[in-house]
Amino acid sequence: MNLFHDLVALIGEENVSINETILLQHSKDESNHDPAMPDTVVFPTNREDVQKVVKYANEHRIPIVPFGVGSSLEGHSIPIHKGISMDFQNMNAIVEVRPQDLIVKVQPGVTRIQLNQELKKYGLFFPVDPGADATIGGMASTNASGTTAVRYGVMRDQILNLEVILADGRLIHTGSLAKKSSSGYHLNGLFVGSEGTLGIFTEITLKLHGIPESILAARACFPTVRNCVEAAISILSAGISMARMELVDARSIAQVNDYSGTDYPVLPSLFLEFHGNEAGNEEDVQFVQQLLKEHDCTDFVFESDSNKRALLWKARHELSYAFRHSSPKLRAMGTDVCVPISTLPDIVDYTRERIDYYDLDGAILGHIGDGNFHTLVMYDPENQEHVDKMEKLNEEIVKYAFRLGGTCTGEHGVGIGKIKYQQEEHGESLQIMLGVKQMLDPNNILNPGKLLPAAVPQIK
Amino acid sequence: MNLFHDLVALIGEENVSINETILLQHSKDESNHDPAMPDTVVFPTNREDVQKVVKYANEHRIPIVPFGVGSSLEGHSIPIHKGISMDFQNMNAIVEVRPQDLIVKVQPGVTRIQLNQELKKYGLFFPVDPGADATIGGMASTNASGTTAVRYGVMRDQILNLEVILADGRLIHTGSLAKKSSSGYHLNGLFVGSEGTLGIFTEITLKLHGIPESILAARACFPTVRNCVEAAISILSAGISMARMELVDARSIAQVNDYSGTDYPVLPSLFLEFHGNEAGNEEDVQFVQQLLKEHDCTDFVFESDSNKRALLWKARHELSYAFRHSSPKLRAMGTDVCVPISTLPDIVDYTRERIDYYDLDGAILGHIGDGNFHTLVMYDPENQEHVDKMEKLNEEIVKYAFRLGGTCTGEHGVGIGKIKYQQEEHGESLQIMLGVKQMLDPNNILNPGKLLPAAVPQIK
Repeated sequence: MNLFHDLVALIGEENVSINETILLQHSKDESNHDPAMPDTVVFPTNREDVQKVVKYANEHRIPIVPFGVGSSLEGHSIPIHKGISMDFQNMNAIVEVRPQDLIVKVQPGVTRIQLNQELKKYGLFFPVDPGADATIGGMASTNASGTTAVRYGVMRDQILNLEVILADGRLIHTGSLAKKSSSGYHLNGLFVGSEGTLGIFTEITLKLHGIPESILAARACFPTVRNCVEAAISILSAGISMARMELVDARSIAQVNDYSGTDYPVLPSLFLEFHGNEAGNEEDVQFVQQLLKEHDCTDFVFESDSNKRALLWKARHELSYAFRHSSPKLRAMGTDVCVPISTLPDIVDYTRERIDYYDLDGAILGHIGDGNFHTLVMYDPENQEHVDKMEKLNEEIVKYAFRLGGTCTGEHGVGIGKIKYQQEEHGESLQIMLGVKQMLDPNNILNPGKLLPAAVPQIK
Repeated sequence: MNLFHDLVALIGEENVSINETILLQHSKDESNHDPAMPDTVVFPTNREDVQKVVKYANEHRIPIVPFGVGSSLEGHSIPIHKGISMDFQNMNAIVEVRPQDLIVKVQPGVTRIQLNQELKKYGLFFPVDPGADATIGGMASTNASGTTAVRYGVMRDQILNLEVILADGRLIHTGSLAKKSSSGYHLNGLFVGSEGTLGIFTEITLKLHGIPESILAARACFPTVRNCVEAAISILSAGISMARMELVDARSIAQVNDYSGTDYPVLPSLFLEFHGNEAGNEEDVQFVQQLLKEHDCTDFVFESDSNKRALLWKARHELSYAFRHSSPKLRAMGTDVCVPISTLPDIVDYTRERIDYYDLDGAILGHIGDGNFHTLVMYDPENQEHVDKMEKLNEEIVKYAFRLGGTCTGEHGVGIGKIKYQQEEHGESLQIMLGVKQMLDPNNILNPGKLLPAAVPQIK
């Protein structure tokens, strides 16, 4: 067996690479996990290419790791057991827009921004916004969400149908074009968030939304993070349907100002967005402003100008990137727990206390409306003391979240880093997950070593 | 083995019945499927009771059919292979309301109206509204939805966690208290809609919503059903977030007037509801009214008065009941396909043409915003010609929906009646569903003969 030559014979020379630079590009993601080179990278151009490679890999027990743009945050696209990295950059067609049905079919390599540029001409948009210009395939694989989930939901809520190639090469579809269905078991939901471990997506059908008539953004500053959180709870309890509701702590604001050239007050802040019609938004904004005052809001600034609004969200979205790339020597570790929102003030206070205790440079920010927040901690991977502290902090936050009834990952996924918490989070349910994996990928060739504790495949 | 005595020994005499009247009550649902008596009815009072009965039944290969209030519409709660009907009327506690988290934990026997009465005091509500005062357990089992799904989603979208007793008696939980999670495979979604075939729910954690500040309802009449549908599409495409959007054809309006004492014009109509703040709703209503005029709306009546609004929705909700119970000699067959909304005018025209062709008394109504509609056809079960026509009509509508990319059931579930369409709808995916069932219920004791084509358990 010669992997490279066999793959070339299957899908053509132009679609297979063992170029060092290409292998290196496919060895890492945006996480702090160590890189690992694949043996080969393939660039399928259609579902048949995917089927051929998967069948071959299954026969020879070769790991396959799907690759979008490498923006994952838990090592999902790192080929830790080597084998094949399958890059979807040549499967990036928007297959069909059905504007009246508010539906689009895309190939997995389509990116979020590419999709929204196309949809604009129909007055439609795809709401899920994890910040990075990730591929739709990658976002579906990790059940990504981000700033708009509080209003529009997560990836799983948007997916009507997946075309999936199973480990044995069978092609299935998991849903239909219907907006809702009570027919059969919900395989859509099972495959979304399966991180490439159950099958490989070759086509994805998504729900779309009409661009709202009016969009307003606002920034609100508070003396403490606790005030921010309590203010957010009061808005949600009042039944106001926020489109975005982000917590950004003072450390993060400093980074925003530094990286994006803004001059926002260096105070714990809420970044808000309202979607609706003009009259409705104005009434909501007034009501929200009143509510925030009761929580000691010191500064409420309305970004009605669309450029300023764009800047606000650009700054927020680039924040994670700004931290991750602030120093070439340092790495950034991001936590991702999600808890019942009433417990957020506690866990956020706890997190700040632990960051200070370890004397780390860390920021707290997140999707407060969902109870999902991130800690971004800078550390030197060469400094073992740093590494130990960072790992302890991550673990402490996860354990605290479990005590509050939460989850170890709100949106980044399990990947490599959260496997060790799966038994504690899921208990006996983990056995069912292992059973599903065993049934669908008995040779464990699909992204082995991710999501579940599982054996390494042996090359045949 | 003596089933009755064994069950009495396990969970107490007061919780087991073989009374004829009780057996009869548990032999049927609201569908047109033939009744079948269980051997015994059990009334568990806690999760331990459920575990004991399930373990016993698994050991002796006795079918268990969960029972809520018997409002299912595809025969889900009919014990077609006899065995045990498990009635959850004694497990109807609202376990915990967490108003700040917008979360509630309930036992499966809690009904929708019971829940909303309790939630009112917190200014909260549970939005899923299938019309019937079903139990939350039953609604979760069939992935029920109804009039509000266009805005708030279906049952599957509301469920954060399920406590489930598996066929072997193991207790699992499928989620957490977090609003969103990317941890592990999505077992919540797999169990919701599994119709009692994978496990039995003993506790359900639901998302809640704040009661909107302002609720407005309206009725709009049109010359044809096609006008109604096209008007609905134009509202959705404009990005207006409707809370309810119902199609009611002229035949249904006649039934509404007759049953509910209203005097609505006997014309194809849309029943609409807007949730938001006052200014926002007013702007939406004005815009919608304009849009509807472009589709030849002849009559737009605003029900701002809360009594009239309540009457409107009561009339709509009782419509199905009104048909089903309009004559003691007749049965009502309901279809339930869901299709991409742009294709609704075609399939609704086709359906009307086929009803007329068979010379049946049938109405068309449904959740037009989701592309989900029902045909209600009255027939005499003693008249074989009637039965044949009704079955042909149902099949023709399902096949037409498949051609349009739709599903055979938008919200009623598969139960008995839609099993024959599962292969055509799901193709190779059906094998995965059968694999999941085999893994979780190898002896096929959990609601056998529902949802999937599967063997009858043999009593040991």
